[in-house]
Amino acid sequence: MVNKPILAITPGEPAGIGPDLCLQLLQRPLPCPMVVIADPDMLQQRAEILGLAFNYTPWTSQHRRDRAYYVAEVPLTGPVVAGKLDPAHAQYVLQTLQRAASGCLSGEFSGLVTGPVHKGNINNAGFPFTGHTEYLADLGNSKQVVMMLADNRMRVALATTHIPLSKVSNSINQELLISVLRVLDQGLKQLFAIPQPHILVCGLNPHAGENGYLGDEETKVIAPAIQILQKEGLRLTGPVSADTAFLQQPLCNADAVLAMYHDQGLPVIKHSGFGNIVNITLGLPFIRTSVDHGTALPLAGSGNIDSGSMQSALDMAYRLTQHDTTQTA
Amino acid sequence: MVNKPILAITPGEPAGIGPDLCLQLLQRPLPCPMVVIADPDMLQQRAEILGLAFNYTPWTSQHRRDRAYYVAEVPLTGPVVAGKLDPAHAQYVLQTLQRAASGCLSGEFSGLVTGPVHKGNINNAGFPFTGHTEYLADLGNSKQVVMMLADNRMRVALATTHIPLSKVSNSINQELLISVLRVLDQGLKQLFAIPQPHILVCGLNPHAGENGYLGDEETKVIAPAIQILQKEGLRLTGPVSADTAFLQQPLCNADAVLAMYHDQGLPVIKHSGFGNIVNITLGLPFIRTSVDHGTALPLAGSGNIDSGSMQSALDMAYRLTQHDTTQTA
Repeated sequence: MVNKPILAITPGEPAGIGPDLCLQLLQRPLPCPMVVIADPDMLQQRAEILGLAFNYTPWTSQHRRDRAYYVAEVPLTGPVVAGKLDPAHAQYVLQTLQRAASGCLSGEFSGLVTGPVHKGNINNAGFPFTGHTEYLADLGNSKQVVMMLADNRMRVALATTHIPLSKVSNSINQELLISVLRVLDQGLKQLFAIPQPHILVCGLNPHAGENGYLGDEETKVIAPAIQILQKEGLRLTGPVSADTAFLQQPLCNADAVLAMYHDQGLPVIKHSGFGNIVNITLGLPFIRTSVDHGTALPLAGSGNIDSGSMQSALDMAYRLTQHDTTQTA
Repeated sequence: MVNKPILAITPGEPAGIGPDLCLQLLQRPLPCPMVVIADPDMLQQRAEILGLAFNYTPWTSQHRRDRAYYVAEVPLTGPVVAGKLDPAHAQYVLQTLQRAASGCLSGEFSGLVTGPVHKGNINNAGFPFTGHTEYLADLGNSKQVVMMLADNRMRVALATTHIPLSKVSNSINQELLISVLRVLDQGLKQLFAIPQPHILVCGLNPHAGENGYLGDEETKVIAPAIQILQKEGLRLTGPVSADTAFLQQPLCNADAVLAMYHDQGLPVIKHSGFGNIVNITLGLPFIRTSVDHGTALPLAGSGNIDSGSMQSALDMAYRLTQHDTTQTA
C-alpha cells in the first residue's frame, strides 16, 4: 500500500496515438507523480515529431516527487513508425501491461491509466488476446470484471462487451448477471464511496420485452437475477426498457445503468459525454481507467488529436485513489 | 389535396393518457385547424375530470376555420374508466385509425397525429395487431414503412423495430436494408426538403464488427447494401460503429442515422431529446407523426402528464405539411 498516490500509465500501441496522448498529458500540471511504462526512446522520438518537451527521470520506487513524471523502461526491439502497425511490437505492448499490473499488485503504483492497444496487431503476432480488459483481468487473477464508462453525468456498465450481437441473448444468464451486478455494486461502493448504490438494470429486448410479447429473457433470466440480489440487499430497479432508462429522471435517481450489451449503453454515454468519457474496469484488484477510443493510427504523430478522454481517465484514476478502499481492507 | 393544412388527431387508447394529451393541446394556440377523431362524450367526460375547457364543433369538410378544432365522431359502445383497459374498446380504437387513414388518403386531412394505443388490449380483444405503425401501413397499402424519431438535433431511423433482440441478426438482410434506406432517403427529400440527404448507417455488431472480428453481418450484408445504393446516388456513410455514429461531429454532418435495431438508436435520442421527441412514419402515402411514449394508464385523468411529445408531434406534422411533396406529385 502506497502512502500517497502514484499512477502508472501505459501508452499502449506505440504506432498509435497513445504515446502522443501521454506526451500531451505530461505537458500539463499532474495531480500526482506519474510513471509512464514504455520505451523512453520511442517517447523521445514522438515528442520531437510533435514538438513537445520530454525530460524524464528513470523510475525507481524511491521517487515520489509531487507532480513529476518518470519512465519505467520497457525496451522495444525495433523502430516504431507512427501510424504503421508492426506485429514485432506486440510483445512489447503486452510487457508494458505486465509491468504495470505487477506494480499495481505489489503496491508500487496506486492505479493504472491505459492508452489504446490494437487487438488485431497483437493477435496477428500470434498472441491470444481477446481484449485489454480481459488481459488485465487475467494478470490480476480476477474471475469477473465489469467494463463501466463514466462521465460527470452518468455511469454505464455492460453485462456483455465485445461479442457479436447474435451471441448476446445466449450469453445473458442468471449466473453472469448476478456476478456482474455484485462486482458493479461493490465497485460503486469501494471506488466511488456510494454507501448503497442504486442500479438501473436494462432489459435485453425492446421495451424490456413488453411483458413477454417481445422476448422472454426478462421474465426468465433478468427479473429472477434481480430478485435474488434484491433479497441480498442490493438496490436494483429493473428490468427497465433501455429507451426509458436513460431519460433524465430515472438517470438522475440512479448511480449506474447496467446495459445488457455494448450498443445498448455506449452510444448514449458517448453522445452525451462529448469525448470526456472514462472507461473504468471494476473487479480488478487495482484501480484501472482507460481512454474510451482506439489507436487512431492515421493521427499518430500529427498533433491533431483530442486528449480529453485520456485526461479524464487520468483525473478519474486520481479521484478513485482518494476513495479506494480495495487496498486498505 | 387540401388547400391549407388540416390535421387529424387520434387520441388512441381511451383509458390511457391520449385523450388527456389531446385536450391539453386544444387549450393552446393551434397551428391550423385540427380534427379529433374520437368519441366526443368520452372527451367531454375526461375534460371535466381534468377541469379543462372542451367546446367542440362536429367536423364536416366544409369547416376549416383557422386554429379551430373539430371532432369527427367515432362512437364508443360503452363507458370508459380512465386507467382501466377494456377489450370492448379495441374495435373503437381501430375504427378511429381507419377513419383517420381514409381521410388522409382522400385528401380530407393533410396529415395525422396519433396518440398512444395499447397493443396488448387490442390483441386481447382478438384483433391481429402487431403495431400502430404496421396497422397504418396496411391501411395505406405501404410495402415498406420506416420508423424515425426526431428532435431538433437528430433524426434516428430503425431498420428493425419491435422484435426480440435474438431475432435481429436474422432479420437484417440486403433486401430489407435497401428498401428501408430508399424510403428513408425519399422521406428526407420529400418531407424535410433535403435535396441530397446524408445518412449514417450503423453496423449491427459492436464497433461495426471490427473488420469481421466481432461478427460478419457488416461485411456480408450491410456494406454490400450500402454500395448498391451509393451507385444509385444515395449519400450513405457506413457501416459505422453505433458508439461513434452519435458523437457530435459525425452527427452534425448527417441528416439521419439508420440504427439496425430499437435499442441501438432510441436510447440516444430519447436521452438527448428531453421528452420532446416525435415519431415519424416514413413510407406511408400520408404524413403521420406520433408521440414517442405509451398509454401511461395510471396517469390518465390525473392531470399530471407532460404533453411535450404530443405537442412536438403536432408541431412536426404541421411543419411537414409545409414541405410535403408526396401529395402534389
